[in-house]
Amino acid sequence: MPERAAPPLDLASYMAERGRLVDAALAAAVPPADALPAPLHAAMRYSLFAGSKRLRPILVLASAEAVGGQPDAVLSTACAVELIHTYSLIHDDLPSMDDSATRRGQPTCHVAFGEALAVLAGDALHALAFELLAETARSAGLGRTVQVIEEVAAAIGTQGMVGGQVLDLLAERRPELAHLGRWPEVPSEGVYRIHRWKTAALIRASVRAGAILAGADPEPLRALSTYGEHLGLAFQVVDDILDETGTSAVLGKDARADAARAKLTFPAAYGVAESRSIAGIETERAIAALAGWGPRAGVLVELARALLVREA
Amino acid sequence: MPERAAPPLDLASYMAERGRLVDAALAAAVPPADALPAPLHAAMRYSLFAGSKRLRPILVLASAEAVGGQPDAVLSTACAVELIHTYSLIHDDLPSMDDSATRRGQPTCHVAFGEALAVLAGDALHALAFELLAETARSAGLGRTVQVIEEVAAAIGTQGMVGGQVLDLLAERRPELAHLGRWPEVPSEGVYRIHRWKTAALIRASVRAGAILAGADPEPLRALSTYGEHLGLAFQVVDDILDETGTSAVLGKDARADAARAKLTFPAAYGVAESRSIAGIETERAIAALAGWGPRAGVLVELARALLVREA
Repeated sequence: MPERAAPPLDLASYMAERGRLVDAALAAAVPPADALPAPLHAAMRYSLFAGSKRLRPILVLASAEAVGGQPDAVLSTACAVELIHTYSLIHDDLPSMDDSATRRGQPTCHVAFGEALAVLAGDALHALAFELLAETARSAGLGRTVQVIEEVAAAIGTQGMVGGQVLDLLAERRPELAHLGRWPEVPSEGVYRIHRWKTAALIRASVRAGAILAGADPEPLRALSTYGEHLGLAFQVVDDILDETGTSAVLGKDARADAARAKLTFPAAYGVAESRSIAGIETERAIAALAGWGPRAGVLVELARALLVREA
Repeated sequence: MPERAAPPLDLASYMAERGRLVDAALAAAVPPADALPAPLHAAMRYSLFAGSKRLRPILVLASAEAVGGQPDAVLSTACAVELIHTYSLIHDDLPSMDDSATRRGQPTCHVAFGEALAVLAGDALHALAFELLAETARSAGLGRTVQVIEEVAAAIGTQGMVGGQVLDLLAERRPELAHLGRWPEVPSEGVYRIHRWKTAALIRASVRAGAILAGADPEPLRALSTYGEHLGLAFQVVDDILDETGTSAVLGKDARADAARAKLTFPAAYGVAESRSIAGIETERAIAALAGWGPRAGVLVELARALLVREA
């Protein structure tokens, strides 16, 4: 027996500590709010430091650590996926998209800075993300870095995050998109496809990125990919349920916005009760992928459980 | 003396041939217009195949060739800079930005596909560009590829293309941006800064990318960087002059749109005559950077001369 048993895992402490690491690195990566062009940097920082849980960057760190890597070596990639997530929220909130006025309890970027600056702040975060991804080569090597850049780019492209957002809009059957013709694929492909692309692809890529950069062997990498895919789907199903059942005050954004826009969500397709069951099943599948990993996977397993029962 | 003299350089043939190479590679890189999500791919292709001169990708190829590289080895990076340029045009044309209805003689992307799809088509082209940049590692090696990714990302970021677009908007002194406070840097920094960031940074990065990927030595790389910077500035000054003096029919977009929006252009700051002189000076500086290169630089030199006297 080891002299000292491993301390019990405190997920909240882990999240807080890794979150601070990410926050400090993000603060250093984005030029200061008074650097030219000042309003652009101010808009980027406004959205970046608006109370995110830093889920995606923490998944990069935790996945690297689960296969024996060091957080510092993958930190710039962790920041990159948060920049990408933030850019996507800014663009999704635009008047021409979801037209959201509130996010994380404060005015959305375009409400605070105007629509033009919001578009450009998103674009600048998107570009800066790839600058940081490339910088990771200094701590994690060239080959692994190039593989991660290629995978992240694909995960946020036409058959990933952006493609999912398009399916999401098409499924709303907006009149202004009617002239584009019928796109029969959306109903038949269903809400699983939308959520896999819109949300799960980047979450899966974040988990894979940490593992690839830390030099994971093929078998653990496959297991982590499965974990990331099911975790990402569960995360979005819970998001849909909270939008349906939560209050605006707790969520920090307009509750029932999905229903108001007739979005194709899990509650809309399956009802709240069955959606809860689907979220539970996907969470179990994520955890099952790491069966036998022991304490190495403790953070990832606990994180999956915590995300299932979150209230915001 | 060589047995046969080099044939006289025919710039138009070179541009047409390399343009076809780029067109074919772009057609293969973007998913077909009927692949899911079909309207997204249709919007991307619509803007990508709207009659671009392919200046930036041809600069990547010509720069690589000038230092002894092969076009095929840098083709995916050539495509990437064209994807980035196209994304930036789509976003610049949006109603919240320059609100342009026509581009290259046809309706802009948001007019044809709606604003939401135009934002997302730009985002998807942006992501796909970095996927192609990363793919270049297969033909040009890991280290050079990572360096190019980092440089391109910086060139299109807050102190590059996007930053220049922000300064451009701020210089218009739009009422909706007034609440952001005074940004005294714009007038004093002037139109040179706007154009260097908005246009020259990506053109310079395109020239550098070709040379870096082809393994250029430091001295020729420095010369090509100087060439790219001055060429990029000259290109935008000529663009400004054409907007002021050309007709909508020849330009394929609304002429005098800059003046209508009170944009800070070279003609606005210096008048048309002095702007022509500035464009000539910058073109000469670009060409002078390649003095002594002989026929190797023939394409780049002729291209600089041709861009100075273009009419659209």
